[in-house]
Formats: sequence, structure tokens, C-alpha cells
Amino acid sequence: MGISRRQFLARVGQAGGYSAVFTTMQSLGLMPMKAEAATPIAASPGIGKRIKLVVLGGGVAGLTTAYEAKRLGYDVTLLEARHRPGGRAWSARNGDIVEFVDGTTQHVAWSEGLYQNMGPARLPSIHDTMLGYCRELKVPLEVEVNTTRSSLLQNDKVNGGKPLLQRKVVNDTRGQVSELLSKAIAGGALDRDLSAEDRQRMIEALRIYGPLDSSSKYKGSERSQITRYPGAGPRTLIVDENVLGIHDLLDANFWDAELYEEAIDWQATMFQPINGMQQISFAFARSLGSAIVYEAPVTEIAKTAKGVRVGYSRKGVTKYIEADYAVCAMPLTILKKIKADLDDDHRGAVDRGGDTYQAACKIPWESRRFWEMDYNIYGGLSFLAKGPSPIWYPSANLFSDRGIVVAGYMMETEDGFDKLSLQEKLDASRASIEKLHPGHGKELEKPIFCGWKHVKWNEGSWIGPISQSDYDIITQPDGPIYFAGDHTSHVVGWQEGAALSGKRAVQMISDKVKAARA
Amino acid sequence: MGISRRQFLARVGQAGGYSAVFTTMQSLGLMPMKAEAATPIAASPGIGKRIKLVVLGGGVAGLTTAYEAKRLGYDVTLLEARHRPGGRAWSARNGDIVEFVDGTTQHVAWSEGLYQNMGPARLPSIHDTMLGYCRELKVPLEVEVNTTRSSLLQNDKVNGGKPLLQRKVVNDTRGQVSELLSKAIAGGALDRDLSAEDRQRMIEALRIYGPLDSSSKYKGSERSQITRYPGAGPRTLIVDENVLGIHDLLDANFWDAELYEEAIDWQATMFQPINGMQQISFAFARSLGSAIVYEAPVTEIAKTAKGVRVGYSRKGVTKYIEADYAVCAMPLTILKKIKADLDDDHRGAVDRGGDTYQAACKIPWESRRFWEMDYNIYGGLSFLAKGPSPIWYPSANLFSDRGIVVAGYMMETEDGFDKLSLQEKLDASRASIEKLHPGHGKELEKPIFCGWKHVKWNEGSWIGPISQSDYDIITQPDGPIYFAGDHTSHVVGWQEGAALSGKRAVQMISDKVKAARA
Repeated sequence: MGISRRQFLARVGQAGGYSAVFTTMQSLGLMPMKAEAATPIAASPGIGKRIKLVVLGGGVAGLTTAYEAKRLGYDVTLLEARHRPGGRAWSARNGDIVEFVDGTTQHVAWSEGLYQNMGPARLPSIHDTMLGYCRELKVPLEVEVNTTRSSLLQNDKVNGGKPLLQRKVVNDTRGQVSELLSKAIAGGALDRDLSAEDRQRMIEALRIYGPLDSSSKYKGSERSQITRYPGAGPRTLIVDENVLGIHDLLDANFWDAELYEEAIDWQATMFQPINGMQQISFAFARSLGSAIVYEAPVTEIAKTAKGVRVGYSRKGVTKYIEADYAVCAMPLTILKKIKADLDDDHRGAVDRGGDTYQAACKIPWESRRFWEMDYNIYGGLSFLAKGPSPIWYPSANLFSDRGIVVAGYMMETEDGFDKLSLQEKLDASRASIEKLHPGHGKELEKPIFCGWKHVKWNEGSWIGPISQSDYDIITQPDGPIYFAGDHTSHVVGWQEGAALSGKRAVQMISDKVKAARA
Repeated sequence: MGISRRQFLARVGQAGGYSAVFTTMQSLGLMPMKAEAATPIAASPGIGKRIKLVVLGGGVAGLTTAYEAKRLGYDVTLLEARHRPGGRAWSARNGDIVEFVDGTTQHVAWSEGLYQNMGPARLPSIHDTMLGYCRELKVPLEVEVNTTRSSLLQNDKVNGGKPLLQRKVVNDTRGQVSELLSKAIAGGALDRDLSAEDRQRMIEALRIYGPLDSSSKYKGSERSQITRYPGAGPRTLIVDENVLGIHDLLDANFWDAELYEEAIDWQATMFQPINGMQQISFAFARSLGSAIVYEAPVTEIAKTAKGVRVGYSRKGVTKYIEADYAVCAMPLTILKKIKADLDDDHRGAVDRGGDTYQAACKIPWESRRFWEMDYNIYGGLSFLAKGPSPIWYPSANLFSDRGIVVAGYMMETEDGFDKLSLQEKLDASRASIEKLHPGHGKELEKPIFCGWKHVKWNEGSWIGPISQSDYDIITQPDGPIYFAGDHTSHVVGWQEGAALSGKRAVQMISDKVKAARA
């Protein structure tokens, strides 16, 4: 896997990476991780009274902005181009249409009850802000199974191209690493690094960790692969001793796929709303009621003496809203095309940022749940070294007959995938399933290629790398015009970033209101 | 952790261990693990017609026996001592009573909707037999979160006794192991084991695996511990660089607790029935209808010319059932006290086996879900080096206000715990919570000490180590008397073993019926 794939897996969508600042200031110990959720907006109740706020875009950032502003008494109008809230937080189901900017349309015709979260599909338990909103808005959650040891890893270079169980790869890796380290310690290689007592303890610990046998060799274990599960009467466990050697593991290069489960945002426990991620956006929208105007694409943002005037198109008629403040919570790809009174710095940052937008795509199919029935795979991800990958098995409606499986969630721009026709893309997606699950490619039906770069009103999955100065500009207001969206956070590609950015916009506006009144 | 704790964690309840037979016969590759479930009982439909079968004991083994036998046309009666089915597969809730053989009674008075699986509480996805029954009997399942990276590990010897996040321990361990191995390789310690190319690839791979920095040092990572999660605007991620050194990790001796998630029966994905494990037994019982006689403890098992005569007590009156076959599906602790026509071998094996029964216990409490609200812990297990451990957080009704947390699931016989009074046991249990979650011990209410060694009609949690010859005896019939239960399987302490043993009993009887008719 190349670096782009690795970054994609580990940190979906960050703009320029989490700028990790290392610190040793924190004392070693327990710090239950809390996102900013615990911090309510610091503003007097009712501070927004008689202040008009217009929010542009009804994705999670816009919804959060409007929700928090309304709670503080602001007079809020949210303009949304689509007929629905949520933006990328969209749970596509029967009757929905994937509409590309080039006019291509795909009609979703899945069986009743099935859906696919085309955008964000995971709520890590450390995303306190989003979990907090789910609690507050009473959106029922269920566990999203991000890791299962029964999923598969595949690379043509090993095992004759046949897939390997994740449990085997993960545990054989630990076993081989442990055997090598144990051997090195026993051979005296680390005598200067470890005391004699620690060397002895380490050798013993590696027998558990590996696990290694009494002569510190890795011979496989029940953790890794068994050929027979034990049963009643004489039926004993049989362990497969035919382990992956370190050379094969290096050829396989599964390291990233083995480690994704440890990325901070991908660690257990993770959640998803029952019935789709969009339930959160629906709940926000219900709370906002008539403050949301749908099918109202913004056409113009002008600064006025009082604040802003926003033009939008409604059933072919251009209308205007006057407001004290505007919060632009739409993608920069869209904002950059709108006539807007932005100063040079903001215009530049918006234009440059809009050009970086990424091309993540998902390719979901309806199918009988052969992965559950025939492979004991319940949720989780399988990875292939080439072609559409990973395969993402549904955590929704486990044990039911049919489900939606994603065969390919990656950057369309990778490995020339974007050069393929729609049909070729779907064929490649099906081929990934066939490679992991021979004979089951033909069970796949009703594919959808959701390439976010092409999706109307998005034209990109999330922002790409931008300069620090552009980030600093876009995270500060241009007069009465504020900016929100995951692209104004360090949690790009996640609803958490969007929500935090919405809260921050309301905080900044409220600070300004307070200062003006003082 | 001593060996007993380790074995307990890794393989709850096996009798003498899974006798692992290692093999290299299986070609390296994908073998979706299937338990015996896929194998239906090999017998003609209706083979059991006009054959009377009496099943003794209505735990999972007895229920499975009766269910499978009924399906084949046998005339089945199941005698159960209690007023309910399930045996240890019991989901205690408000109004239930824990009744000890010494007369001690504890009344469960938890809030409506709360329950605790006092016995088996997990369904691994590889337990095909049990999952198959859940499908067949339409028992709805939900994910049981067996591992969460937000849970805690504690040992007085490290970090001043303050608990550490599991994510930190797991990831710092991998990091330190990787750094040591990388150093050893760079120093030439493994030149004879790895080619020059593989050494170079390994050093690079360890940078991902550790993760290590560009000079192959482990400096912590977002996987392990952060002091600040990133947010909107200028808020960046801050990683805690203050990592656990290898000496501390060795002192901490968390190895078993780090690895439990890799034990074959504890690997993700795991499940639990919605509303309690007992739902499975209830579903079996519904299907069996009037074939089950409750409150009917067996008093005598006699061989007759035709087969067997079983005496049982019903409302103070002794009754008798004549049958062709009996299947004893009760614990050997109970069977050994019943007057039974067993040959010397079986009598000996039953008596000796009954004496080995283990003393696992669970100590559940009702509480506000402080672990979710204040610690981001959703399901999973926390471990302490001493005292009642692990702490088992509920996977049921996540995000609700109150829940049942188990503070101690261990062998009562360990560390002299059995010498404590009931009140002292409860105090120790509360102290474990207080140690991990300071200030929250006082939130615990309505404890129950479910020590299976004392529980009426069980007198033990599961069988302990027995000789191979006793196992061989007890897994073969004594004339018309057959034996079932997890103790007649290599999957002791699991419903899967019980169910497989029940299926096996019906298979053996059907084979005999077929042979007799031929």
C-alpha cells in the first residue's frame, strides 16, 4: 500500500494531517479523552435575540451552527440547496438518486429497509460532540463493528493470491515479531538496553505475547488459525501450525491494514445511528423546523452596512435575506463558484482550498449476506492490495437476509480508477468481492458508484492539503461572514469536525455580539 | 497475574484445556471457521417415533437435546428442577432470587429493564451452533463489545497505582517491542535470520507497526494517548509523549489482559441476545412447550428391562417416568448426589468429575453509567492486578441512564476471596471500582454475589480438570443412560459446548435406534 492509501486508511480525510504537537507536560496517567463537547458555548442565554443569522448549507456544520444559534435566541434561517438535510451525511435508500454534476444519475433501488451511509458512517466513542448531540436529540445508536478478526486480507504476492484471515495475519505478525525479538535478546543483542532481570522477564512475557512455545518459537496458536474448532466428545481443537513467515509478511505488506484498528478515530468502541447516519441530521432538522429552507441554493453573498445580504434561488425565483451575520457552511468547491463579497485573502483561500478537494468514493451493492452466512464475517473491513478496497461489511441489521456491502471505499484518483468508465468501475468493484469471496461476485446486485467528486452540491469528498496560512484565513471571519465545515477543523472528513466548527462559529459570533454590546 | 488468572481469562472454564493438536496438513489459506453447526444430526426424519426419551436438566445442553430429539419425532419429556429453563444461562432481573445451598438468599431489585447474565454472556461469531439456533429460533442478537480501547488496566506497581488506558498499554507495548526489535536488527543481531533486503523492509515496517519515528524510536502516538483531541480552528491534536517504558510494562505484567481479545472465543465480532442470554433458553422452551416439566428435581435413575425409569419430585410427590433412553444433562455435582444405576466406571467418573467443579463468581451492581458518561467506556473489560477483576461494563442498553456493571468475574477460590464474608466480598468489589473510577464506588447499588459454587442446583460454575479416561467414560453412555452438558465437550463453560453435547447425545441415540431397527 502506498502512502496515499495508508494515510487514507489511518486518517480519512485530514487536511495536511493532524498537526500533532507532542507533549510531556501531561502527567502519565488516566486522561479520559473528551472532545470539546463538554464545553458548551460560552454565551449568555438569549444573547442572540434580535440578531439575524443566515446559515448557508445544511450539512452537519450548518445544522450544528443553526441549532446552537437558535438555542441562544438568534433568529436563524438555514438555506440548503437540496431537498433534504445532511449533506454528505446521507443514508441512501430505495428511491434516492445519486446525481452527478455531468448529468449522470443513478437510482437507488435497494430492498426495503436497506441503506448505505454514503458519507460518514462511523461515530468513534471519543467523538463526544456528536455522541452528545445523539444523546440530546435522542438518536438511537448501535455498535458499528469496525474490526472483526474474521475479515480478510489479500495480496497477490502471498499465499498464491488467496485471501488470509485477519486473525491469522495479525496474530502471526505478533508471533514472528516476538520470536525475532526473543532471539535477539537471548543472543545478547540488547544487553546494554535491558537489565538481566528485564531480559529474562521479557523472554517470558513474549511467550504470552507471541505466543511463543517453551523454546521461544512461534508455531501458531488458536488465536491465529485453527483447522478444527473443538466440540463434544472426542472432538478436540486442531491448530494450524502452518504460519506466515516474516518474509511472507513483508511481501504481503499488510501493515497498514493490520493497524487501522488502532487509529485513534477507528478504535473500538464505535457507533452508528440505527437506520442510518442521516438520522442525526434529520433530528437536527426536526428541531430547527421552518428555520430551514430547502431547495434554496445560494446565488450571492453581499456585505451590507447592516451585515449581509444573501441571495438564493427558490423555484426559479431569486430571493434575498438580510442578516447580521452569515455562516458559510458549504464546501469550498461550491462557495468558490458563488458571487461573494470576500476580501482578497478569503477569496484566495476559498479558491485554492476548493481546488484541493478529494475524490473519495464508495461502491455499495445489495446482496444476500454471504459474508455472514458463509464466512462468519459480521461487520468490519477486508483489504485488497490492488483494486477497489476495502470491502466494508454492514453493521446494520446483522443476521438478516440481505444487506449492503461496500466493495471499494477509496480515492477515485488512485491507480487510475478515475479513468475507467462507470461500468468498468463497477466491474472492478465486483472483481474485488470475487477475489475475496470466490463465487459470490455474482450475488451482487444494484450497484451505486458514489464518487463524491462528481456529486452535485459537493464536488469533492473533503478538503485536501492546504497551507497553514490559508487554514488560518478560512478559520477567521471576513467581516460578518463566517466559515464552518469540517474543512475549518483539524478533524476533516468527520462529522465531529463539522460540528465543532459550527459550535466555534456560533461562539465567535456570540463573542462579537457581546463585545459590541459592552 | 498468575497462571490461574491467565487461564481463566484466556479460556474460561476449559477442562484441562483445549487439547490442541497441531497440524500442518491444512494448506495455508482461508478456512472460514465453522463449528459443528453446519452438520445437522444424521438421522432419518421421524427416526424417534414411538421412542420415549427423558432429558434430565433444562440448561442449554438439556434444551438442545430435547429440541433436536423432538424434531426427529422422539417422545420427549424434560425434567427441570427449577421453575425456569436455562440453568446457568440465566439473565437475572428484578424479582429474581439467588439461592445458595446454605440457605442464603439474595433478592434482585434492579430497575426495570436491567439485567445481568449471571452465567454465559457472550456469543462468539465462530460459535456457529448457538448462532444457528438464534437464527432458527429468531432470537434477536446485538453486538457484545468485548474489547474497547477506552477501558482501564491497573497495577499498584506502575503509575503510582493509577489506572492506565488500555489503548495506552496495548500501543505502548507494541511500540516498545518494535523499537527493541528494530534496534536489534540495526545492530546486526538477526543478520543470520533475515536477508539484507528483509532487514531493511522490517525496519521500515516497524515504523508503521510501532509506530516508530524516522530514527526508529517509539515516542508515543495518537494510537496510545493524547492530551488533546483536535478540534475546529487552531485546536490541534496533542499527543502524550510520556510513554510507558519496557521496564514499567514488565512490572505491570498486563500481558494477559492485553491479549485476551485475541483468544479465539473472545475475538470480535461477539454477540449477546437482546434482553439477556436467557432469551435463547426461553425460545427453546417455547418450542418444547409441555414437554418440559418444571420444579421437578430428579430423585432416581434406574435401568429397566425396557430402558430407564426416572423418579422425580413434584410438589412433594414422587413420580416416575419410564423411557427408552435418558440423557443426563445436569451438572455432575448434582448427578453425583442422585441415586442412579450407573456402572462402576460411570459412577467413578461422575463422582470424581463432580468434585472438580469450579467456583467462578460474578458480582454485579446497579449504577448510573458513569463509565460511559465520564470515561467514554462503552462495553468491554477493565482489569486490576489484585482484588475482584475484571470489571465488565454492559453492552446492553448503551447510552441509557443506568446499567449493571460486574465488578469481579473470577474464581472465588483465588487469593482467599472465598474466606471473606458476603459483606466483605461486596466491599472488595466496590473497592475495585473505586480504584479504577475514584469517587464512583459510592454510586454502586444493589449488589449481588453470584458465586456459582453455592448456587442451588449448580454447586459449581463448570467442571475442572479431569483425567482423559474419566472424560472418555463420561462422554460414552452407560447402557440407556447418556450424558450431555458442556462438561462432555472440549468447550467447557460455553453454551456452544453444551449445545454440541446435546446434539451429539441425540446423534448417538439415533445411531443406536437405527442399528437396532436394522
